[in-house]
Amino acid sequence: MLVTRDCYIEAREAVARYSSSVDVTVDPKDVLLCSGCSGALDLCITALANPGQNILVPRPGFSIYRTLAEGLGIKVKSYNLKPERGWMVDLDHLEEQCDEDTAAIIINNPSNPCGSVFNREHLFDILEIARRNFLPIIADEIYEHMVFPGKEFHSLGSLSLEVPVLSCSGLTKRFLIPGWRMGWIIIHDRNGVFDQEVRKGLQRLSQRIIGSNTLVQGALPAILKNTPQEFYYNTLCILQNNALVAFEMLKNIEGLRPVMPEGAMYIMVGINMEHFPEFSSELHFLEQMVTEESVFCLPGQCFDYPGYMRLVLSVPEEQLREACHRIANYCARHFTINSISSYLVQRKHSQP
Amino acid sequence: MLVTRDCYIEAREAVARYSSSVDVTVDPKDVLLCSGCSGALDLCITALANPGQNILVPRPGFSIYRTLAEGLGIKVKSYNLKPERGWMVDLDHLEEQCDEDTAAIIINNPSNPCGSVFNREHLFDILEIARRNFLPIIADEIYEHMVFPGKEFHSLGSLSLEVPVLSCSGLTKRFLIPGWRMGWIIIHDRNGVFDQEVRKGLQRLSQRIIGSNTLVQGALPAILKNTPQEFYYNTLCILQNNALVAFEMLKNIEGLRPVMPEGAMYIMVGINMEHFPEFSSELHFLEQMVTEESVFCLPGQCFDYPGYMRLVLSVPEEQLREACHRIANYCARHFTINSISSYLVQRKHSQP
Repeated sequence: MLVTRDCYIEAREAVARYSSSVDVTVDPKDVLLCSGCSGALDLCITALANPGQNILVPRPGFSIYRTLAEGLGIKVKSYNLKPERGWMVDLDHLEEQCDEDTAAIIINNPSNPCGSVFNREHLFDILEIARRNFLPIIADEIYEHMVFPGKEFHSLGSLSLEVPVLSCSGLTKRFLIPGWRMGWIIIHDRNGVFDQEVRKGLQRLSQRIIGSNTLVQGALPAILKNTPQEFYYNTLCILQNNALVAFEMLKNIEGLRPVMPEGAMYIMVGINMEHFPEFSSELHFLEQMVTEESVFCLPGQCFDYPGYMRLVLSVPEEQLREACHRIANYCARHFTINSISSYLVQRKHSQP
Repeated sequence: MLVTRDCYIEAREAVARYSSSVDVTVDPKDVLLCSGCSGALDLCITALANPGQNILVPRPGFSIYRTLAEGLGIKVKSYNLKPERGWMVDLDHLEEQCDEDTAAIIINNPSNPCGSVFNREHLFDILEIARRNFLPIIADEIYEHMVFPGKEFHSLGSLSLEVPVLSCSGLTKRFLIPGWRMGWIIIHDRNGVFDQEVRKGLQRLSQRIIGSNTLVQGALPAILKNTPQEFYYNTLCILQNNALVAFEMLKNIEGLRPVMPEGAMYIMVGINMEHFPEFSSELHFLEQMVTEESVFCLPGQCFDYPGYMRLVLSVPEEQLREACHRIANYCARHFTINSISSYLVQRKHSQP
């Protein structure tokens, strides 16, 4: 027990140091270790929302928010992201979704599946909406710092003056160790809003089933302290290069509309379904693509966003090029010029 | 992803081999890996019981059953164990508790906090009650094989002919690695009862948040295959020796009534509260003991069993002897002869 407890404190201190910046100093008492970032999200949703209430989630967005919430009897309402504006939040739509049963807003930045990165001003706009509606934010920042060279990442916790934020992150993505199950929550409280119930709730929930592995807890201080900057930088250069390769190859394919990402490890690609009339949906289109070309992409439906597909960029470049070639061949075989002007199709698809 | 998946299969195969015996062959498809044994119990309770239903749990028993169930809106009803019969189940009481809303019976063998071990005949009696009432069993067997030399452990899954059993276990106790978070469920289905809903439910729930750490999954085949018998045997000899030391020292203390365990790593000790009238409860008695003697034992209240305390036997013998000496001093200072005949006190306490 003593080993576990000491280990826990050192691991929390390491996360606090790692998550501090010029803008914000994180106290170890504000760090909770969890079984992966999905475990962290589960605790945050459970602690902030009651059955019957709702949380606001991005569309397109990672399906886990819905899976976790609905399993707890909590509803989800979606706010739109705008593909034509680099997947920024449709702020008016976000504010329209806030109602008296809303318990929290989930903001995912950088985004899975979009690979988009919000700038400082946009994050301030989001915080202002949360403030006006007295809503806390659950910041899914598992891709923190995974922005392509030249871009900047800002955490919501570092910018918020009045809005309390629960920030969720972990080792999985930046350190490329999925399966180690090491995630965490950082409590960025403001004006003591979380002090009474939420902090205690999170702590109790985190002890319901003892969370994260002590082996990895023990390794955490060394992982966070000793990983060289080149490791991060090299990963991001590979991802950025792959993003450019995929974007350049896919944008020249008739019927496809890739949206260039700025971070994370994904690229979203619109499919002009009007030009592939033999398929009833993008799922159907992609199932046939697996059959014909052995290339598998997740359908937009998985992210509540039909008519798109998501490519993963964390594969070797040669494999990615081969996949894009096959996608090109597949599209060429199935592309059909239809009667609707392509301008209108384009327009309709960018406003789902 | 491929690494994770392969690893998963090998780890499951290793658990299947480890859990097979002359009485039962476990198929890898019947093994689910979980985040610790508490994670396994959580999945089983969630899969078998709906909100509003109840599960039957032992008294005294580990508090996690109640914590997990009540968090899910599932009620718990307790069945009594009999201290005067080595903590065997009060079978009549167990059967009385079964009602139309009962979803499952939890059987914990060997027992925390009692250290008791059920023999084959008693397990058959329990199975017969489950069969008559059409109830599945959740077997919390995290202390499997941890029985003192000369005793035998039988798993419920190996004995059951008709009753479907979900057996929960893991590495924590026998391998002395708490915090590694590696547990598992073994589905011992009978007559296809679990085939339709329960098996799918467990599989889906186990993927809601990805469960157990891949590092430990990778190590699992070697841990289960290469751990020498001497390791287990030495641990059990130490525990048995400590149990005897504690039992012999405590049984001579006026006002205490230890119950000799046969396995696991605990000993339950009755406190004749009538002889310590200055204390309102065993909790009060134990709080004062920490203050005066710096010896901490868990109060029976934690196991829904007031009037008892639980000692942990996994400490070095010298430390255990020192603790028992201090308990003796403490009791000697506070023991009071009262007017009720000690026979009656004894009798009352053994039937809480």
